[in-house]
Amino acid sequence: MKTISLLGATGSIGLQTLDIIRKQPETFELSAFSAGQNVEGARKIINEFKPKLVSVLNKEAADRLQFDFPDVKVCHGKDGLEEVAVFEQANTLVNAVIGSVGLEPTLKAIEARKTIAIANKETLVTAGHIVTSAAKKAGVRLLPVDSEHSAIFQCMQGEQEKNVSRLILTASGGSFRDKKREDLKNVTVEETLNHPNWSMGAKITVDSATMMNKGLEVIEAHWLFNLPYEQIDVILHRESIIHSMVEFHDRSVISQLGSPDMRVPIQYALTWPDRLSLPDALPLDLASIGRLHFEKVNFDRYRMLYLAYEAGKIAGTMPAVMNAANEEAVAAFLDRRLTFLQIEEVVERAMEKHQSIQLPELEAIIEADTEARALVRSFIT
Amino acid sequence: MKTISLLGATGSIGLQTLDIIRKQPETFELSAFSAGQNVEGARKIINEFKPKLVSVLNKEAADRLQFDFPDVKVCHGKDGLEEVAVFEQANTLVNAVIGSVGLEPTLKAIEARKTIAIANKETLVTAGHIVTSAAKKAGVRLLPVDSEHSAIFQCMQGEQEKNVSRLILTASGGSFRDKKREDLKNVTVEETLNHPNWSMGAKITVDSATMMNKGLEVIEAHWLFNLPYEQIDVILHRESIIHSMVEFHDRSVISQLGSPDMRVPIQYALTWPDRLSLPDALPLDLASIGRLHFEKVNFDRYRMLYLAYEAGKIAGTMPAVMNAANEEAVAAFLDRRLTFLQIEEVVERAMEKHQSIQLPELEAIIEADTEARALVRSFIT
Repeated sequence: MKTISLLGATGSIGLQTLDIIRKQPETFELSAFSAGQNVEGARKIINEFKPKLVSVLNKEAADRLQFDFPDVKVCHGKDGLEEVAVFEQANTLVNAVIGSVGLEPTLKAIEARKTIAIANKETLVTAGHIVTSAAKKAGVRLLPVDSEHSAIFQCMQGEQEKNVSRLILTASGGSFRDKKREDLKNVTVEETLNHPNWSMGAKITVDSATMMNKGLEVIEAHWLFNLPYEQIDVILHRESIIHSMVEFHDRSVISQLGSPDMRVPIQYALTWPDRLSLPDALPLDLASIGRLHFEKVNFDRYRMLYLAYEAGKIAGTMPAVMNAANEEAVAAFLDRRLTFLQIEEVVERAMEKHQSIQLPELEAIIEADTEARALVRSFIT
Repeated sequence: MKTISLLGATGSIGLQTLDIIRKQPETFELSAFSAGQNVEGARKIINEFKPKLVSVLNKEAADRLQFDFPDVKVCHGKDGLEEVAVFEQANTLVNAVIGSVGLEPTLKAIEARKTIAIANKETLVTAGHIVTSAAKKAGVRLLPVDSEHSAIFQCMQGEQEKNVSRLILTASGGSFRDKKREDLKNVTVEETLNHPNWSMGAKITVDSATMMNKGLEVIEAHWLFNLPYEQIDVILHRESIIHSMVEFHDRSVISQLGSPDMRVPIQYALTWPDRLSLPDALPLDLASIGRLHFEKVNFDRYRMLYLAYEAGKIAGTMPAVMNAANEEAVAAFLDRRLTFLQIEEVVERAMEKHQSIQLPELEAIIEADTEARALVRSFIT
């Protein structure tokens, strides 16, 4: 039995994780979860899954939930997230919160020697050196949940790291892949959120349109698979059928494919190295799809991807600054206080202003994150 | 050091195997080889690779070679093939002869507990039940060399057989893939031999155009990967970039891709489970290729594939009959004594006339083969 603590249960990945648990109750059990501000969502999950521990954002909401569910332990805030992450009765943490708030619970879960299915990009992007060395030291497995990293992880099964010559991440190109750069000036929030292939949360859908999402994935891949940026490529592939590829020294390439369904990588992280059937998932029907398209990425068109490679190579606190600036800028865009192209202007300016500190401790990362957010807010208002 | 005995050294797979040995002399050594009728080819190989044992088809040629190369042991004929297959100083057999002549040396090599890289389709097609059970009993590995089976084998690394739901073999469609069935009546030998993607021997290029080649591969896959025919699909993929795929129960599909270069699967069979660099192999450049196409196979258009599935399902001696009839028919076509479409007519008639014997011994298989050839010759003359 996999006993699961789930951070971010009411988000897109969280809900799909719950769907997997729901469908295979003989294999999976939800022991604990966090739900942020979505207290109504939390109530439904408690009623259905009967977990032992729940965390929400605010104390008031926590108190009300505790009153209504006396058999469940309810906690809240940052401490609550960490309590869920290290919950004793769970052997596996699924970290599906969005943003840099996911970092510290991951580190606590590593200390507690949980198996960690990681869907929170920021954990590795901002503190990859800390997280991967802590995981290595503790003998803890970081299992990727992102479809691209899961694809790479699946392609590496039975292979030796030394034989890998290149990772090739596929990118759909996001909502505006058929637009030129000059057409992006006046795009709306609604247009941005209309992703052609995947149904995801708002923040990641904007990141997909700017390709910051792919940039974060490149940095994440660098840490997860221990390869320099020169050996990590991105290719445009509009159908999102090939989820990513690994090239080996003999020029053989292994790829993972499938109909876009996040439950496949989520479940793989939970069952690895085994697989379980996923009965209502659509089989891949390449003959019906007919054609798969591939195209070189233009870094002028997708400047955010260029910035992410730069941040990754500069390393230190720079990826944290880039990520924090992006989170603030995307929030401002969704709030109609920035235009689409201003998101990247803001991120670039924040990066320019920052002097990276190499091999930073957690405190320095949090400080860089905080400063970058303040700086971005000063740009906007 | 991999010490290699190579059956069929002067054929297409044989020459590419020699190229791999040539380029990595610190890893591979040619200990023994057979060269059939190509005595000039044999001389060159002896001069370059200094093997210890050589076999050619005829006694006269063997005697001349023995006179010219007193330090090499030269043998001939069927016994010579078997002597090469079990040569004591070789740990690995590459069986790259064409046709059913490859069967008995494989069985001898299994008895001698060699690792076997198998490029000879007929071995598994005609006697799959004997070869796989002998290999299992002897604890001998059968490593596929065909690009499709190597692809499947690569995709299965680190995976469990029980989790496989489907094998998907890709088919280029051969020389006439853009022609309709009614356009095939008057196609010439020269047109048939003009394969769009792969440079291969004449027999296999004809088989590729009729799709008997894919049919043989389906039967081979059935034996190599221990799956019923209902779980083995063929899909048209004109670019031959995805070499084949494996679908698992969770609907995740793993595929192996690459520029068409037979040295990749040959070398993989020789280095498995490790990989070695193949410096002058072209890296896959999907952005330059731009598009990959996929299409359902029409069994009316490619009747030979239908016949092969039928022969596989009937099992027993039927695949041997189909294969023998096809070998004779293709030889007659190359000799301008049959038209292209008559190849499949002849194969179908031979199959209709045959009453399959289930779980046949080797003798029954050889007898069925012999009878089918005689029958086909009686159709033609």
